[in-house]
Amino acid sequence: MTRLRAEIIAIGSELLTPYYVDTNSLYLTEKLNSIGIEVRFKTIVGDSKEDIIQCIKHALSRSQIIIACGGLGPTEDDITRECFSKALNKKLVFFSEIEEKIRERFRKRGLSMPSICKKQAYILEGAKILINEWGTAPGMEIKEGEKFIFILPGPPQELKPMFEKYIFNELKKISKQFVCFKSIKITGLTESQTESLIFDLYKNIENPKIHILAYPGQIVIHVLAYSNNDYKEAESLVQNIIDKFKERLKDNIFSTDGEELEEVIGKLLKKRNETLAVAESCTGGYLSHRITNVSGSSNYFERGFVTYSNKAKIENLGVSKDLILKFGAVSKEVAEAMAVGIRRIAKTDYGLSITGIAGPTGGTPTKPVGLVFIGFAWKNGVLVTRNQFLGGRESIKFQSTQKALDMLRRYLIHNK
Amino acid sequence: MTRLRAEIIAIGSELLTPYYVDTNSLYLTEKLNSIGIEVRFKTIVGDSKEDIIQCIKHALSRSQIIIACGGLGPTEDDITRECFSKALNKKLVFFSEIEEKIRERFRKRGLSMPSICKKQAYILEGAKILINEWGTAPGMEIKEGEKFIFILPGPPQELKPMFEKYIFNELKKISKQFVCFKSIKITGLTESQTESLIFDLYKNIENPKIHILAYPGQIVIHVLAYSNNDYKEAESLVQNIIDKFKERLKDNIFSTDGEELEEVIGKLLKKRNETLAVAESCTGGYLSHRITNVSGSSNYFERGFVTYSNKAKIENLGVSKDLILKFGAVSKEVAEAMAVGIRRIAKTDYGLSITGIAGPTGGTPTKPVGLVFIGFAWKNGVLVTRNQFLGGRESIKFQSTQKALDMLRRYLIHNK
Repeated sequence: MTRLRAEIIAIGSELLTPYYVDTNSLYLTEKLNSIGIEVRFKTIVGDSKEDIIQCIKHALSRSQIIIACGGLGPTEDDITRECFSKALNKKLVFFSEIEEKIRERFRKRGLSMPSICKKQAYILEGAKILINEWGTAPGMEIKEGEKFIFILPGPPQELKPMFEKYIFNELKKISKQFVCFKSIKITGLTESQTESLIFDLYKNIENPKIHILAYPGQIVIHVLAYSNNDYKEAESLVQNIIDKFKERLKDNIFSTDGEELEEVIGKLLKKRNETLAVAESCTGGYLSHRITNVSGSSNYFERGFVTYSNKAKIENLGVSKDLILKFGAVSKEVAEAMAVGIRRIAKTDYGLSITGIAGPTGGTPTKPVGLVFIGFAWKNGVLVTRNQFLGGRESIKFQSTQKALDMLRRYLIHNK
Repeated sequence: MTRLRAEIIAIGSELLTPYYVDTNSLYLTEKLNSIGIEVRFKTIVGDSKEDIIQCIKHALSRSQIIIACGGLGPTEDDITRECFSKALNKKLVFFSEIEEKIRERFRKRGLSMPSICKKQAYILEGAKILINEWGTAPGMEIKEGEKFIFILPGPPQELKPMFEKYIFNELKKISKQFVCFKSIKITGLTESQTESLIFDLYKNIENPKIHILAYPGQIVIHVLAYSNNDYKEAESLVQNIIDKFKERLKDNIFSTDGEELEEVIGKLLKKRNETLAVAESCTGGYLSHRITNVSGSSNYFERGFVTYSNKAKIENLGVSKDLILKFGAVSKEVAEAMAVGIRRIAKTDYGLSITGIAGPTGGTPTKPVGLVFIGFAWKNGVLVTRNQFLGGRESIKFQSTQKALDMLRRYLIHNK
C-alpha cells in the first residue's frame, strides 16, 4: 500500500512569532489523512523572498503534493506569487477579469478598490485559477509533471472553503485510497489503565492506526483505517477493532461519535424527559457552563447555584450550619446536603453537587488541594464520591465537572 | 542591527497528525525573541531517517542556531541521535555514567531499567551533554564552526526546564541584544477602532515592533523593542509608545501586565474590600466560572445563580412574573431586576446580571441571536446595557461575560 505524500508550506512572518498557531496545517492534515494522503513535512517560513524560494525548491525536490498557504494578500509583505514565479520559472500573467471581481467585491461594500489590490489579479502562467468567493486573493493550482502544487490564501475562513471546493475531490481521485476514521472517548480510566486493557489488540497492527490522546479526566482513541479496494473494507477494519475495544473498556466509553460528555448527558436527559439542577462550590459555575454550552440545554437544565460562600450554601441550599461547622464545607456530608438541597429546591429529577479545594492555595494536610466531593441525588437516594485530583486550578475544576457529569451518565445508562 | 537567526526542527510523526500542535516551537520562539534572536524557519518532520537527515542538512546550510526537539526516546521510532550522527558525520559514543543515571531513575520508582533505554546513553562525539533531571534522555549541544546546534527531548516538561537551565543564558550572551516586551489588553473597542486610533503612532516604526491580536471582546497589543546597547534603551522605546497608546486608548486599556479581566476586577474588589454576586441566564455559569478561575476569589465573590428557567428567575431572584410576561426574559427590565435581585439576596456591594440569546437557535426577528442585556447594580443604582454580539454560542457567551466584567471595572476605576 503506497500512499501519496504531501508537504505543507505555511508562509507569513506572523507564524514565526509566539502568538500564532498554524491551525491551517492541522485542518489540511486532517482532510488529507481522511483521503489516505500522508503529510510528510510541514514548513513555516517568514516573508523573506530568499527563504520562501528555498522552501519551495526543497518541497519540489521531495514531495508529490505541495500545499502553500499565505502571502497572497495585497501588501508589500505578500510575496508568495513572486516566489513561486521565480522557483518554478513561470511568468505572472495579469487577468483583468480577476481585477474586476476584486473591484466588484469592494464596490458591494460601498468602497473603491485600493490600487495595491491589483497585484492579486496576477496568476502564474499555465495555472488553474481557484476563484475565491470568500475573500479577494484567488488561489492557484499548478501541475508540474507528476507533482501537484496548490497555492491558497492564509485566512482559514478563505482557505477551508477553497480547499473543500477545489482541491479535496481532485486529490481524492488521485489518491485512490479509501479511509475510515472514528474516535472513542473514555472517562473513568487513566491512560495506563486504558492502554493495559487494550494494548495487545493493536500493538502489532499497522492498519487501522491507533492513536491515544490522554487528558486529565478524558482519553480519546483515534482509529484510522485505509483500504485500496473500497470504503467498506476500511470501515470494517475500524469497526472490528472498536468492537473489541468496547468489550474491554465497557461503560467507560461515553462516546463513539465525537460527542462531549455534556452532549451525551443532554441527549439522555432529553430522551427521558427529565431535568437537572446543580450546586457548585469549588468549580464556581464551570459545571453549569459546560451543561449550557449545549444548544437546547434549557430543555433539561433548570438552574445552577454557585454557592461559593458558606452563607450561600446555608441560605440557598438548606445545608445546615451545624453540618458545615462539624464536617467543614469540603466534606462528604456537605456534598450530600448540597445535592439533595438543589434537587429539592429546583424540583428536578436529578441534583449534582461539587465541593472541594481547587487550589493552588487553601489545602491542609487532611484536606489537600485537589480533594473534591461530588454528590448525585435522585428520587431514591444520594451518592457521594471522594476524589483526589492532580493538576492546576483549572484542571482540577475540569476534572471535577467531568466526574460529576459521568456520575449522572452512569446512572442514566444503567437505570432505564 | 543584525540579529541572530534560529531554526527549529520538531521531530516526531505524531506532529504530522491533526491532533498535536507543536507548542514547543511557540515556547522556544517566545524565549528566543526575548533575547533578540529571530526564528527564521520551523520545520516539522516525521520519524523517517531520510527526511530528518535532509532537514538537518538544510538547516545547517542556512541557520546559525538550530534547535531540534523530539525523537530522543527509547523506542525504535526515536532516531534523532542516529540522524544527527549521519548528518554531522560524528560517531555516537556510549557513556556509562548516563546509563547509570537512567538506571537510578528507574530504581527510585522501584523499577528496573528496560534494556531499550540503553540507547539514550549514546552521545554525539564532542557534544556537550545536557543532563536531563526531568526525564531520561539527555540533551546535547554541538558547536560546528559558527553554528550552534541544540538537541532536546520532545516532552515540554523536559524541554522547557532544560532550555532554561542550559541554553537560554548561553544564547543571551552570544546574541548581545537587549529586549523589552510588554503587552496591553483592551476591551470596548473593535480591532479597526483600535487601529484607527493608534496606527499613525507605529506605522513607520521598525523598533519597537507592534503586533495586534484581535479576539471577539478583547484586543491584545504586543510591543517588543530591541537595543544593542542596554536594556534601559529597549525599555524606554517600549514605554514611550505605550504611553502614547494610553493617551489615545484611555480607559479601554484594562491591563498592561498580561492580566485577564477577571484578575483585574478581583484586585480592584479586594483592595476596596467589596463583594460581588452574579445572576446569569444565557451565559449559564461562565461568568461565575471566569471570576472563580482566580485563586483567592472567595474573598470577594459571594455567590452566583444560574437562573436558566423563568421559574428560577422568579423564585431565586425575586423577578416578578408579570415583568417576564410583559417584556420577556430577554429584556432590559428583566436584566435590571436580576442585577438588583442578586445584589439584595446575596447582600453584596455589587450585582451583575446577564440575560440574552446565545444561539444558535432561539432567535426571533425582534430578539435575534446575540442580543444580550447586561445589568450592573450598586448601592445607588442600576445600569443596563443592550448588546448585539456576533459569533457562535461560546463566543457570544464569552463576549457577554467580558462586557459584564468590564461594566464593573469601569465603575470601580471611575468611582474611588
